[in-house]
Amino acid sequence: MTPPTTSASPSPRVSHIGIAVQSLDGALPFYRDVLGLPVVPIDDADGARIAAVAAGDALIELLEPAMPGSPIDKFIARRGPGIHHVCFATPDLDAALERCRAAGIRLIDEVPRVGAEGKRIAFVHPSSTGGALVELTEM
Amino acid sequence: MTPPTTSASPSPRVSHIGIAVQSLDGALPFYRDVLGLPVVPIDDADGARIAAVAAGDALIELLEPAMPGSPIDKFIARRGPGIHHVCFATPDLDAALERCRAAGIRLIDEVPRVGAEGKRIAFVHPSSTGGALVELTEM
Repeated sequence: MTPPTTSASPSPRVSHIGIAVQSLDGALPFYRDVLGLPVVPIDDADGARIAAVAAGDALIELLEPAMPGSPIDKFIARRGPGIHHVCFATPDLDAALERCRAAGIRLIDEVPRVGAEGKRIAFVHPSSTGGALVELTEM
Repeated sequence: MTPPTTSASPSPRVSHIGIAVQSLDGALPFYRDVLGLPVVPIDDADGARIAAVAAGDALIELLEPAMPGSPIDKFIARRGPGIHHVCFATPDLDAALERCRAAGIRLIDEVPRVGAEGKRIAFVHPSSTGGALVELTEM
């Protein structure tokens, strides 16, 4: 294993993990009441109702389809409920996307778009990440 | 949304995210070289070859099947590569499992077992978590 090739700026951290659920009411009690994770207010987005809990410096976002044909609705139809994506907060999103392009990484969002919380985001295609849907955002 | 019902002890944090991959050699460069996440030495476990990178205070564990019929091998055969599980480090694993039982949560490991790194772990069944495979471990 070789050391990372980037340095200087801080390395990315996990911003949140998105879990596609059939029902927020059915899923939230496990995370909130059984694990004891504090609820964090969050806006709905991308045709999904969202509830979030904090786990260390990462959020767990529970995503319930609120619209037929939305990304979460299609994910559940295809694979069933489960972990949908992991989001990394990067110190420089544009530089990260540039490194993706230079490495031949397939981007779903070639140009960053504004996601929940007003931050710029871009999704990376699972075919370039070993199979995981990866979201990149700003710190 | 109501506030968490537990308090006193620190709330759990994300310990690691396990991603089932076909090939460590194919997947690691994205996380290590493109995202710039530092590689962390880790032992193989559960019939999987494992490579880990640090992302904030969480690890990303890439899990390559090393044995036919292993959990990761079966997961990839059934669903394809992708995010396999999320692990929460809890301040008191036994208390967390007791809360699971009290809430009727279905446990895969009724009794904790020793996982990688020598820590006690227990998996929670996806049917009780909104669909995600959740691992619990000690802080």
